[in-house]
Amino acid sequence: MPWIGVDLGGTKIYGVVLDEGKVLAETKRKTPTQGGPLAVVDTMAALVADLGGTEGITGVGVGAPGVVDSEEGTVRQAPNLPGWMEPFGFSAALSESLGGLPVKVDNDVNVGTYAEHVLGAGQGADNFLGVFVGTGVGGGLVLDGRLRRGPTCAAGEIGHMVVRRGGRVCGCGGRGHLEAYAGRANLERRARELDAKGRDTALVDLAPARRMTSGVFVRALAAGDPMAVELIDEAVAALGAAIASVVTMLDLPLVVIGGGLADRLGPAFVTRVEQAVVSELFPKREGLKVVPAALGDRGGAIGAALVGAVLGGSHPAGGG
Amino acid sequence: MPWIGVDLGGTKIYGVVLDEGKVLAETKRKTPTQGGPLAVVDTMAALVADLGGTEGITGVGVGAPGVVDSEEGTVRQAPNLPGWMEPFGFSAALSESLGGLPVKVDNDVNVGTYAEHVLGAGQGADNFLGVFVGTGVGGGLVLDGRLRRGPTCAAGEIGHMVVRRGGRVCGCGGRGHLEAYAGRANLERRARELDAKGRDTALVDLAPARRMTSGVFVRALAAGDPMAVELIDEAVAALGAAIASVVTMLDLPLVVIGGGLADRLGPAFVTRVEQAVVSELFPKREGLKVVPAALGDRGGAIGAALVGAVLGGSHPAGGG
Repeated sequence: MPWIGVDLGGTKIYGVVLDEGKVLAETKRKTPTQGGPLAVVDTMAALVADLGGTEGITGVGVGAPGVVDSEEGTVRQAPNLPGWMEPFGFSAALSESLGGLPVKVDNDVNVGTYAEHVLGAGQGADNFLGVFVGTGVGGGLVLDGRLRRGPTCAAGEIGHMVVRRGGRVCGCGGRGHLEAYAGRANLERRARELDAKGRDTALVDLAPARRMTSGVFVRALAAGDPMAVELIDEAVAALGAAIASVVTMLDLPLVVIGGGLADRLGPAFVTRVEQAVVSELFPKREGLKVVPAALGDRGGAIGAALVGAVLGGSHPAGGG
Repeated sequence: MPWIGVDLGGTKIYGVVLDEGKVLAETKRKTPTQGGPLAVVDTMAALVADLGGTEGITGVGVGAPGVVDSEEGTVRQAPNLPGWMEPFGFSAALSESLGGLPVKVDNDVNVGTYAEHVLGAGQGADNFLGVFVGTGVGGGLVLDGRLRRGPTCAAGEIGHMVVRRGGRVCGCGGRGHLEAYAGRANLERRARELDAKGRDTALVDLAPARRMTSGVFVRALAAGDPMAVELIDEAVAALGAAIASVVTMLDLPLVVIGGGLADRLGPAFVTRVEQAVVSELFPKREGLKVVPAALGDRGGAIGAALVGAVLGGSHPAGGG
């Protein structure tokens, strides 16, 4: 009983057909930059057709950014997607486009965390924190084997935990948030600010008039660029502080770290974060592990299929 | 079906008989300072006799400090109690002293939080954080209506979350922990340090050679003592930062604040903590409430009876 899983990102929409935990097909399309939620629904319906259509498919699971109510199937707000600031009944709209096929939707970080739980680095762990370091920084919690969504579906917002009171301004407007130090978009903004103030950096030289991608950070670090080293040092320290707080409060033996920036920086980055977490933990926790996510870019779409299957009443492990 | 609830504190052991949510009897004894866990068991057995004995009692619930495994009934470590640094099978030992009556044990902060959930300021709230500000600072979590204990029974340690990296030394040896800024014992140590360095304060004048009690802080504040004002300002700010982080991560609409120091400082203190939490939260959370605990000193013993009843398989609301 295969499920289709779809990861709705800011630049691309990525889809897989998942059956018995295996990816049978995958494809992607560009996220429409105009037309709001309805254009997204149309593009997803086309993506489902690209994947072979709905024949033999049990349902579609979608991971969407922003605040998602998985019970109601609504995406309340998706600040990174143009024209999507009002709640939208996403499940119902996509289901209608697909001839009534069941559609379930959840937050993109929740589904990514759940994918790691079922098929990735969190297998066998009933309690762990997933941290996704990309354009922003998101978190997902598996507690006693279940995703923690919270009463207003806003749990897991580790990126907006304060790691330095009165510190650097975050994209959300708050101060001293983890994301202000460790999210790619905020790192880029900081680098351009410092560059404008006269501090030369390879980061801006490598991305003079285009997005400062994760790859740009990797190359600048490899070249020993002092600003890149400083910014990533600060990111590691901020991740260590926030993760240590969550581990302490919830008694977690495992942290899984993924996301575009973390994936590109590689296992050495995750090891540095682990050391930073351990240095903040007192009393020490024996056996605490901080490990890289295992599913990479496809984790979101895989997790969307898995969570869709659970929300749709199927067994999670096989995705159908 | 009444349960006896016992709160094992560092200086006193407090017990109640609870039936249908009502306290039918209560009493206390001094915590033995010698003889380790066995002396505590003897004192508790005597306390049960003081309360009228085991006739008609369904079971005994105990709230104990330190790391408690409620499934196994063991207290792994109780650093504040002399001679109790090794795991001890507390439930079995007390049950034997009481002729085989069921005995259940859990962490003192967990049972205090659960008491607020069933009969206090957390009634009707399936998701909230309890923070107990006393000699130390402890936290308890109710998530989806259940206590979060964690896989090693160490969840809720909000006192050892880092609020300032590299900051003030905590009683545990760590740096910058919430408890270093807001726990009474650490506040006392800080006041005596500053006094020894030449800063005069009413805090030391009021407690020259005895414990600097919560009442001493209340009197010094009332007298406008600058050091007391400064220390409590710092405590409020530290509580605000740590609580905001937990609320953000777990999506909690309610925080209940109790404990000896908070109770003595009163509702105005809790209002200040609420303001500090709100000032740290961005994006804002509509409807977040930070309220005083309702059960005061007796909450621990009442909660011990309630948790005992749940662990013993009875319905929680009536304690039997």
